[in-house]
Amino acid sequence: MSTPARGRRPGSNTTRADILAAARALFARQGYERASMRAIARRARVDPALIVHFFGTKEGLLREALTLPVDPNRVIGEAVADAPAEHLGESLVRGVVTTWDSPAVNPVMVSLFRTAVSHDMAATFLRETLQRTVIATVSGLVDDDTAQRRAELVAAQMAGLALSRYLVRLPAVVAMSPDELARSVGPSIQHYLTGPLA
Amino acid sequence: MSTPARGRRPGSNTTRADILAAARALFARQGYERASMRAIARRARVDPALIVHFFGTKEGLLREALTLPVDPNRVIGEAVADAPAEHLGESLVRGVVTTWDSPAVNPVMVSLFRTAVSHDMAATFLRETLQRTVIATVSGLVDDDTAQRRAELVAAQMAGLALSRYLVRLPAVVAMSPDELARSVGPSIQHYLTGPLA
Repeated sequence: MSTPARGRRPGSNTTRADILAAARALFARQGYERASMRAIARRARVDPALIVHFFGTKEGLLREALTLPVDPNRVIGEAVADAPAEHLGESLVRGVVTTWDSPAVNPVMVSLFRTAVSHDMAATFLRETLQRTVIATVSGLVDDDTAQRRAELVAAQMAGLALSRYLVRLPAVVAMSPDELARSVGPSIQHYLTGPLA
Repeated sequence: MSTPARGRRPGSNTTRADILAAARALFARQGYERASMRAIARRARVDPALIVHFFGTKEGLLREALTLPVDPNRVIGEAVADAPAEHLGESLVRGVVTTWDSPAVNPVMVSLFRTAVSHDMAATFLRETLQRTVIATVSGLVDDDTAQRRAELVAAQMAGLALSRYLVRLPAVVAMSPDELARSVGPSIQHYLTGPLA
């Protein structure tokens, strides 16, 4: 542990980021259980003990690795801040998809989805993340007892968009720009935010 | 191979169904690569050679295991057959969610999603399945050059609904009946089928 591979200082930001990148890649490719701490260490070129030093347990590493590098509340908040009331949906989709497309966020988001769908603990983590971020923020836009339902319907639509664009890669959804998606999917989000529900 | 466990006749429908059920469970839980033919055979209580006899390769077993026990074209076709033009979306959601909820279809659908998201080959299989079924059927309802895009947007919304209801289990989405979901999500599907897109 005192001599990590390639002579990096333990505790450097680079080492920590390398471990997280390796964990995301292996959790996504192999699933949470199969991806071993040893394999993650090997990929990050560090001593396995360093992972324990930084993250404690494998679950601690998972939580850290799947935490988005941007605050979704901020992304959504900024996206809708200046939007006229009738274009909240379109603005939300444009802001979120632009963020998802960015190289800093995309691999984490894909890894979060891959891991969440294949593993119950990660599914709970995704549910909690959605609850704490998208659902909390959207609930703030809708001030009545339909808020939770509306927020989850927004989350469901956005999750399906992410799944189609980044994981299953439906060709027309992949080809559309964030602005085209905003104009196409925005009205559905607007419906969930402000339209009549069941 | 001549003496499968529990003395079943090789080739009986029960044995074949048991193998498929075991494969779906293990593919979903462990991912395609980690789920071994041997473990699937053990779970199904058959000789591994019998799996080869029935399905040839592991990929053959995957394709068979992830093929839905109902024809999605028929489900969607029947759902929208008698629907007035302005309620196509609502009817589609009601028919599809009712089918997804059914005990015969649900485990296969969940397994298809879990496996598809965690594995590229299964993702291709899900993309092909959507293309051959939902997208082909929906394209038939929309007769112009926006058909592919509309169909994929329908598929994305429905995939997000499935993900939220069965895998990530967002509480309000889980609690809604097929009819409530039809009335809430139907207008979005209607928008993708007939509304103005980007």
